[in-house]
Amino acid sequence: MKASQFLFATLKETPSDADIASSQLMVRAGLIRKIASGLYIWLPMGLRILQKVERIVREEMQNVGAQEVLMPMTQPAELWQTTGRFDDYGPELLRFKDRHDRDFVLGPTHEEVITNLAQGELRSYKQLPITFFQIQGKFRDEIRPRFGVMRAREFTMKDAYSFHVDQASLAKTYHDMYDAYTRIFTRLGLDFRAVQADTGSIGGFASHEFHVLADSGEDDIAFSDSSDYAANVELAESVSTAERQPPKMAREDVLTEDMTSCKMVAEHLDIPLSTTVKTLIVHGHTEDDEPQLIAIVLRGDHQLNTIKAEKIEEANVPLTLASDEELKAAGLHKGYIGVDLDMPVFVDRSAAALSDFVTGANEVNKHTIGMNWARDTRLTRIVDVRNVQEGDPSPDGKGSLKIKRGIEVGHIFQLGDKYSQAMNCKVSGEDGKPVTLMMGCYGIGVSRIIAAAIEQNNDENGIMWPKTPTVSDSIAPFEVAIIPMKSKEETVMQTATALYEELKSQGVNVLLDDRNERPGVKFADLELIGIPHRIVVSDRNLAEDKYEYVNRREAEKQMLSREEVIAKVSGK
Amino acid sequence: MKASQFLFATLKETPSDADIASSQLMVRAGLIRKIASGLYIWLPMGLRILQKVERIVREEMQNVGAQEVLMPMTQPAELWQTTGRFDDYGPELLRFKDRHDRDFVLGPTHEEVITNLAQGELRSYKQLPITFFQIQGKFRDEIRPRFGVMRAREFTMKDAYSFHVDQASLAKTYHDMYDAYTRIFTRLGLDFRAVQADTGSIGGFASHEFHVLADSGEDDIAFSDSSDYAANVELAESVSTAERQPPKMAREDVLTEDMTSCKMVAEHLDIPLSTTVKTLIVHGHTEDDEPQLIAIVLRGDHQLNTIKAEKIEEANVPLTLASDEELKAAGLHKGYIGVDLDMPVFVDRSAAALSDFVTGANEVNKHTIGMNWARDTRLTRIVDVRNVQEGDPSPDGKGSLKIKRGIEVGHIFQLGDKYSQAMNCKVSGEDGKPVTLMMGCYGIGVSRIIAAAIEQNNDENGIMWPKTPTVSDSIAPFEVAIIPMKSKEETVMQTATALYEELKSQGVNVLLDDRNERPGVKFADLELIGIPHRIVVSDRNLAEDKYEYVNRREAEKQMLSREEVIAKVSGK
Repeated sequence: MKASQFLFATLKETPSDADIASSQLMVRAGLIRKIASGLYIWLPMGLRILQKVERIVREEMQNVGAQEVLMPMTQPAELWQTTGRFDDYGPELLRFKDRHDRDFVLGPTHEEVITNLAQGELRSYKQLPITFFQIQGKFRDEIRPRFGVMRAREFTMKDAYSFHVDQASLAKTYHDMYDAYTRIFTRLGLDFRAVQADTGSIGGFASHEFHVLADSGEDDIAFSDSSDYAANVELAESVSTAERQPPKMAREDVLTEDMTSCKMVAEHLDIPLSTTVKTLIVHGHTEDDEPQLIAIVLRGDHQLNTIKAEKIEEANVPLTLASDEELKAAGLHKGYIGVDLDMPVFVDRSAAALSDFVTGANEVNKHTIGMNWARDTRLTRIVDVRNVQEGDPSPDGKGSLKIKRGIEVGHIFQLGDKYSQAMNCKVSGEDGKPVTLMMGCYGIGVSRIIAAAIEQNNDENGIMWPKTPTVSDSIAPFEVAIIPMKSKEETVMQTATALYEELKSQGVNVLLDDRNERPGVKFADLELIGIPHRIVVSDRNLAEDKYEYVNRREAEKQMLSREEVIAKVSGK
Repeated sequence: MKASQFLFATLKETPSDADIASSQLMVRAGLIRKIASGLYIWLPMGLRILQKVERIVREEMQNVGAQEVLMPMTQPAELWQTTGRFDDYGPELLRFKDRHDRDFVLGPTHEEVITNLAQGELRSYKQLPITFFQIQGKFRDEIRPRFGVMRAREFTMKDAYSFHVDQASLAKTYHDMYDAYTRIFTRLGLDFRAVQADTGSIGGFASHEFHVLADSGEDDIAFSDSSDYAANVELAESVSTAERQPPKMAREDVLTEDMTSCKMVAEHLDIPLSTTVKTLIVHGHTEDDEPQLIAIVLRGDHQLNTIKAEKIEEANVPLTLASDEELKAAGLHKGYIGVDLDMPVFVDRSAAALSDFVTGANEVNKHTIGMNWARDTRLTRIVDVRNVQEGDPSPDGKGSLKIKRGIEVGHIFQLGDKYSQAMNCKVSGEDGKPVTLMMGCYGIGVSRIIAAAIEQNNDENGIMWPKTPTVSDSIAPFEVAIIPMKSKEETVMQTATALYEELKSQGVNVLLDDRNERPGVKFADLELIGIPHRIVVSDRNLAEDKYEYVNRREAEKQMLSREEVIAKVSGK
């Protein structure tokens, strides 16, 4: 492509309404333009990238035997009424009426449409398993669209749906999809983690999210430094590998006037915060559903994980703290509550591993030091109720945990029979009897991937595109840019054009920057857009038959011969 | 592709709500499924076709330097308010409100969005001309969606928009687009005509429609049998090549009691209808805009063309016939009106070329025979006001006209500055002064092309895909099907699979029909879907090293060797 015949829509200034690095850079590099809140045009430069991502996603879907379809973006409301989602789905579901006053929605997802299709087309277990996918525009009426294409209203998604006669078949396709997703994000050169999103009740993990690791992510991801274990911090299991040591200290109450937090007490006593415990009193119920208070004990340096705590049988959902009045009525003193209590006491694994620890004394202005489980109080209920922390052992026993923020770019999910049940989607099974189908669904935020890739790969000069295992998978809009210096000199332009044609003939995705601009402007543009390889053709160097080569990720220039520069950029 | 791993969704019965051959066949062949009025799913078999059409369209757009973009389907109403179309556009424009009660539309077209983009991005004449295109889902809320994907509500379109500093540049791009469209429909193997849709006032033709010729078309297209002239019948110029002969007969009035039509008179007098004329009295006005009646004279066998007649300066628009009372007041007798009248008389070219013709005598129950222009009455105003007919000379002087019905699949249009004016889309011109841009727009109904191709190519057994100049441009979902007879016999299956792999390795788009179905079912399915080449591998023929080959467009089977069959289907 010659740059003079291509829309360069780079901007020097950062647009005031672009809120994170990727949305700023995508607008500045001329990949996208906003036309309204959450609505973007993909400019020629950006669409090249989007189509490259689409190609890789499509190939990997086909590799696992998924069949491509295209469903309409507009969907009749009746389908959504059948599953109850027309009413249940929030205002993100754009509902509208057509000219005949019939209800429709703009599809944020297509479970209803595809299940309706399956219900009509699938007759026999012999047709199964079957997986359909599409790459298509979706609409979600976000209350506050932000982060550019990351949380846009209209966006490109790959959504896939699989149908099965039984759970074993679903689990197999789910596994294939997991592998396909892993290949997709690996091919794209992204630093990502497949995160256990939810432990299903139907055998194995029923849901994984794929997160690209980047500081601007909305989720905290815990992952092992030595294995592929990864989980959302909210769901990551905290395992305590420490053995509880035998008591060394005697139990003793000390004065801690006005010290109502572990931190204050630890500082006062000059001991590590990790040797203190805190006790939270929350609302719960007995086996007979009678209200009662229950206590949750955590190490002073740990954070309560509400999702985990809500899994305690006796705890109320949602989890709520006891009020000051309720504490008073129970004879407890806020800030000085101990662990020896007249109610069920649930002790976090890490707190349970402590000995000689510090706790409230159940008296105002007093804490107890040298407290020990078993010796001083019972320890019957040990639970996992805290957020994991960086450095914790990985739950799979391999290595220790790191925590980074992640951007969700994919989600695979074992749906079970939720939709097929509601929409009466059955086939005749091997024994001739009707079987309600099991379903899986598998999404990838195609346009979001680009923003995530930029969040993970950028510097002060602009975008850097991820280094992909194979050059042909690179999503850079152009892989190589050739810049003729003094493009009006005939030899320079001829040499540059000849090199351009040569690379093109080798299948290299190359741009000849023949724009009538100063070299500095071109360099800045190409760095902003993130073209991986830059070759400058100049009069001076041509005399020595040399080309100036710069890699976007490296600072230094190299002077290379024609053969060397071709070898460098063609990835051979 | 192996058929066992692909959704065959063929139907024996014609769906009751499919109204024309293509919509019936597309549903029966399992290309599409309807989910609501005017809303369709493209099944795997159909999407393969759609993507093939998209590829050809995309290639030819890139060939003329058009740059691909992707605009959102949802568009803010403000843009449409700027051009006035938010109110002017009919109910086909789907208007809706988002959760914040802001007005939006679902894009039936994108002039506003692209002009808004151009307004923001284009600064200088140096960036021009520039053409953008996209291939994207569009929505038109048709009052009565019909003909399957031909007049659906959501459909795939290629829309392109070009921007220019002057009319000459617009005319050049328009011409390039005309050529690109011609290449697209030629590559697709369609019998089509580029039809002059409107003669613009700004030099040359400002609009062409591209029609695929098919009996089910909604438009009548007149085209030359010897040149590329083609026009909508409503707009095709009627030229009279006949010279008026000198009078031979004397003028004479004859009795024609109760004969108020040319047909009755011609039959009564036993003369050709083409030697009679009819006079229509319509409302008109003088130069000073005073109301007056005017007369339009046509040959008895010709049809008035209202669009042409409305171009008569003195005629009122819309054209309206004088009432019986008005005729009476003017002293005229309905059914017996002549050509010698006390009002302006506009004579169609063909009627003006008559001599010794028959006309009303301006007296009840009387007609005049042996009437002649000049000798018997003045002939001052000769106009073109009739529809052309099959056999008429072509207006370009080459050959004579044929008339067929056409399906509009493309439309190119010189918009001028309608949108750029309204949206203040200017660049600085060569002299530094701001220039309002000229625009062209260019549409192709991508999904509609498929229906049109089927309308033009089908028989009682199903679809036949157009024969394309090059095999690689074929839009058949699969080019070749291999059917192993008795697929459980190992040699047959092995041979079939080996042939399949061989063709695949040669890049042939081949299907191995390994479904567990009777051969008759497979044959019927493959004919219905229209696979161009069918190869049967059977035990019996393998003994002689032969393959049974049938072409979808030919009845007879051929017995070919392996080399012959490969040569046949690979188009080499």
